Amino acid sequence: MTFANVGTIGVQPGHRDEVVAILTRRSTDLDSAGCLSYEVGVSDEHPDTVFVSELWESAEAHQLSLQLASVQAAIKEAMPLLSGEMGGNRFEVVGSPLRD
Amino acid sequence: MTFANVGTIGVQPGHRDEVVAILTRRSTDLDSAGCLSYEVGVSDEHPDTVFVSELWESAEAHQLSLQLASVQAAIKEAMPLLSGEMGGNRFEVVGSPLRD
Repeated sequence: MTFANVGTIGVQPGHRDEVVAILTRRSTDLDSAGCLSYEVGVSDEHPDTVFVSELWESAEAHQLSLQLASVQAAIKEAMPLLSGEMGGNRFEVVGSPLRD
Repeated sequence: MTFANVGTIGVQPGHRDEVVAILTRRSTDLDSAGCLSYEVGVSDEHPDTVFVSELWESAEAHQLSLQLASVQAAIKEAMPLLSGEMGGNRFEVVGSPLRD
């Protein structure tokens, strides 16, 4: 069942765009790991926050992706730029008004 | 610029699946209004919450969609089933590791 992970990542002031650059770096590993969609965003109202909205083939695919060497390296690279504030939700997708 | 709306909708106990049914009813109006993705979900950990993760062609497209007769009717239908607790975030998409 399609799994969604939507979240907020707090960043150190002035470092938002560096975190965005790390998160949006092209990754064929994520395709292979069952990532269906991975949108990264920002909001003028929250200048020290990066937003993500992800869809995965399953919760297991998402969990396993966290062990990929490229993902581990990205986490290590981003970590010093983060504030430690994290938020978000995980859920199972049950449908869409755009599909029959 | 692609606009994301991710949110939680609190529901009256026992009425979650009715709200899911309303939100997932096939709507060609949403396609026409610039809705790119509209995923509806649930989580066993939060039985009285419906989750949505939407992508739109623009923030304006999302805003205008709220005026559609079909959307207004769905809001009116769902309203008595809701608890009033709403959460979420809106952001501008700036990229994805799945795209160059």
